[in-house]
Amino acid sequence: MNKKEFKGFAFTEGGVCAARGFQANGIHCGIKANGDPNKNDLALIYAETSCTAAAMYTTNKVQGAPIAVTRAHLEDGKAQAVIVNSVNANTCNADGIEKAEKMCQAAADALHLNAEDIIVASTGVIGQPLPIEPIVNGVPELAKGLNANGNTAAVNAIMTTDTRPKEVAVRFEIDGKSCTLGGMLKGSGMIHPNMATTLTFLTTDCNISAEMLRQALKEVVSITLNRVSVDGDTSTNDMVCILANGKAGNAEIKNSSPEFEIFKNALYAVLMNLARMMARDGEGATKLIECVCTGAVDDKTAEIVAKSVITSSLFKAAIFGEDANWGRILCAVGYAPADFDIHQVDVTLASAKGGIEVCKNGAGVEFSEETAKEILSEEEILVSVKIGEGAGSAIAWGCDLTYDYVRINGDYRS
Amino acid sequence: MNKKEFKGFAFTEGGVCAARGFQANGIHCGIKANGDPNKNDLALIYAETSCTAAAMYTTNKVQGAPIAVTRAHLEDGKAQAVIVNSVNANTCNADGIEKAEKMCQAAADALHLNAEDIIVASTGVIGQPLPIEPIVNGVPELAKGLNANGNTAAVNAIMTTDTRPKEVAVRFEIDGKSCTLGGMLKGSGMIHPNMATTLTFLTTDCNISAEMLRQALKEVVSITLNRVSVDGDTSTNDMVCILANGKAGNAEIKNSSPEFEIFKNALYAVLMNLARMMARDGEGATKLIECVCTGAVDDKTAEIVAKSVITSSLFKAAIFGEDANWGRILCAVGYAPADFDIHQVDVTLASAKGGIEVCKNGAGVEFSEETAKEILSEEEILVSVKIGEGAGSAIAWGCDLTYDYVRINGDYRS
Repeated sequence: MNKKEFKGFAFTEGGVCAARGFQANGIHCGIKANGDPNKNDLALIYAETSCTAAAMYTTNKVQGAPIAVTRAHLEDGKAQAVIVNSVNANTCNADGIEKAEKMCQAAADALHLNAEDIIVASTGVIGQPLPIEPIVNGVPELAKGLNANGNTAAVNAIMTTDTRPKEVAVRFEIDGKSCTLGGMLKGSGMIHPNMATTLTFLTTDCNISAEMLRQALKEVVSITLNRVSVDGDTSTNDMVCILANGKAGNAEIKNSSPEFEIFKNALYAVLMNLARMMARDGEGATKLIECVCTGAVDDKTAEIVAKSVITSSLFKAAIFGEDANWGRILCAVGYAPADFDIHQVDVTLASAKGGIEVCKNGAGVEFSEETAKEILSEEEILVSVKIGEGAGSAIAWGCDLTYDYVRINGDYRS
Repeated sequence: MNKKEFKGFAFTEGGVCAARGFQANGIHCGIKANGDPNKNDLALIYAETSCTAAAMYTTNKVQGAPIAVTRAHLEDGKAQAVIVNSVNANTCNADGIEKAEKMCQAAADALHLNAEDIIVASTGVIGQPLPIEPIVNGVPELAKGLNANGNTAAVNAIMTTDTRPKEVAVRFEIDGKSCTLGGMLKGSGMIHPNMATTLTFLTTDCNISAEMLRQALKEVVSITLNRVSVDGDTSTNDMVCILANGKAGNAEIKNSSPEFEIFKNALYAVLMNLARMMARDGEGATKLIECVCTGAVDDKTAEIVAKSVITSSLFKAAIFGEDANWGRILCAVGYAPADFDIHQVDVTLASAKGGIEVCKNGAGVEFSEETAKEILSEEEILVSVKIGEGAGSAIAWGCDLTYDYVRINGDYRS
C-alpha cells in the first residue's frame, strides 16, 4: 500500500527514530509462556533529552491501568521515555496500577530517569494478570540495546493481530530549520476510536510547547485516528502520545501561528497515513475503504455520514464480495443520525481502475456491473457521497468484513 | 428453539390465521426470473370484516415506496388486507410509489375492497425496478386460494435469507371472552431496529380501538423488536402492522385499563418470541445471545448497556468460537454511551448447562475455562450484566458472528 501525499510533505524512514535525538528498541522478554521468540513483546522509546509531551486516551469507561499511570505522569506536560508491552493489556486486574508503576520504575532505573518521566502502555488480552517478572528482567537488556535504528524492533513489539508494521515519518521546515516528525501505530481489531485509538507513539525534534502539542494532537486525531473503524468496538487501552525534544532549533511554537499550521499539517500527513494503514490492516481485511462525504451542511454532518458508511457490516461484506450493492451504501447513509435530504444524495464508487456513478438524487442509475466489478477488484476502494446542501466534508476509513475476521476473533485468546 | 413463556400465556398454532376471521395465502408468482418455484414470493392476509389497524415504520431516511403508500392508507386507522412480496424491496426506484399503489389496486380488485383498505409491504434487494406484471397477474390466484390455514404459505412468501419460518400466536381472555393474537415475521440480515423492524404482520380478534392499538404497538415494539440487532444495519423497509377485527366480542378497549394491560402482555408474549426467533435466525447465526442488564439507574441505561453487548462484533465472534472472553463484554459495557460506575459491574454467563460468574466489580474472577466452554456450547446463551445502582432493567437479543454471515452478504445480489 502506498503512502498518500499531503501538501507535498516528503516521507522519510525511521518511524519513532526518524527525528534527531530519539532511540528505540524491542525485545522478546517472554510475557506469554511458549510465545514465539521471534516476535517481540516489549519496546522502549528513549529521548536523549527531556521532551514536552501530550497524549489522548480512550473514552471507554473501562480503562487499562497503564492509562491511569500515564495520565498522572503527563500532568506536567513532560516525558522522556515510553515503555510498552503487547500480549497482555493489564486491564481489569486488581494489581494493574501497581504493575504499570513497576514497569515505569524498571525503565527509569535502567535509563537513570524519574519514574514520572515515563509513559507506559500495554495491549493484548483484557482481564488476565500481567506477568511482571519477564518485563522487569528484560528491561536492562532492552535499554542497553537502544539505538537510532531501533524503530523496527520496537514496532515489532507492539504488534498484536497486526499483519504488518505501521510506521510513517515526514520532513518539513519551520523557521528555516529542518524538522522531522515520525511514529508508529498498532491496531487491527477493537478499532472504533473515540478521542484517540489503539496505541500510537510519535516523536518530533520540533520545538513546541506542551500546550500547543496537546492542541495539535487533539485537532489532528479528531480527523484521522478518530475517523477509522474496523469493527465498531472502542478499545479499553487506546492511547496516542507525542514527544517533542526541540532539537531542530526552531523558535518555540507557543501559540497559533503559520508555524503551528505547518506543524499540524505534518502531524496530519503522519496520522492520516497511519490511519489508512490501520484500516487496511483491519483484522482479516483484504481492502481499504475510504469514504469521502462532501456537500454537507457542515463537517460534523459529513463525518457522521462517512462513518456510518464505513461501519456498515452489510456494505463491508459486499465490498469483500466485490459486489457493487450500492443500496447498502444508501441504506447506511439513510440511517446516519444527521439531518439532510436523502433525495439530494449522489454516490460514486472508484479505485485505481476508474470511477462509476451508481446513485443520483437518492435513486439508482444504470451502470455496467462489469465495470463496477473491475473497479471493486482493487485493494483501495473510494466511496464518494455527495449531499447537495453545503460545503461540509469529511473522510473516514474502514475495511471489508471477511471470513478471516471471524476466524481471528472466534478464538483470540488461545 | 423453544418459545419462551410469558405470564402463562398459552401458545397456539396458526400465525396470522390463528385469530377468528382471518385468512391468508402465499404463492410463487415469479418476481425473479428463474426463481425457485417452490419458494413463494407473494402473500396476502385478508380479514373477513373491516379492522382497526396500526403500524410502525423504519426511521431510516431511505424508505421503501410501500411505506409511503401504507402510511397514507392507515391514516384513518382502518384496513382489511395486507399484500406483501419478497425478492425486491421496491425502494430507491423512480416508479416505486406507482407500483406499490398498483399492488394495492390489484388486491382491492380481487377482494372487492377499496385500495385504501390495503396495507402493502416489500422486502428484498434495494434499487432495482420491481417487476409488477408477475404480481398483478398472480393476485387473482392468490386471492382465490385464501383460507384459514394459509399462514404457512404466507410466511414462506415473506422469507428472504431467513432459514426458517417465524410464527407465534397466543390465546388469552378479556372480559370473559377468549381472544387470540398471532403473527409472522421475516428478518435475518439488515437488523438493527429503530421504531420497528423487518416485516411483521399481526392479527387479533380482540376488540380494541385504533388509538389503543397504536399505543400498545409502540410500547411493546420498543421492548421487543427494537431490542434486537443482527448486524447494526437499520433496514429501509422495516414495518410492523397489526389488524384487529373485534370478533372476540369483548367490550372495546378504548383507554388504559386492566384489559389493555392484558392485551399488551399478549402482544409482548408474541413479539418477544418473534424477536428471539429473529435473533436466533440472524444471518449465518449458530447461537441466540440474550443479554439481560439489571441494577441500572433506569430502564434506558439498562437498554443502552444490553444493546451495546449484543452488537459488539468482537463479542459475537467470541461466542461463535465458544470462547468465554468476558473482557470483550466488559469492553462493550464500558463504551456504552450511558453513565454508571464500571467498578460496580458483575457479569455472568449462562445456558441450559448452568451459569458461571466471570467478572465481579469490574474485574475478572477465577473460573473454570472448561465449565465456561461447556456452557457456551449451547444454542441459547444468556449474558447477565448487573450494575449495582438501581432497579432499571432491560433485555436485548442478538446472535453470534460467523463465517456464514460473510458468505451470505459477500454476494447477496447474485
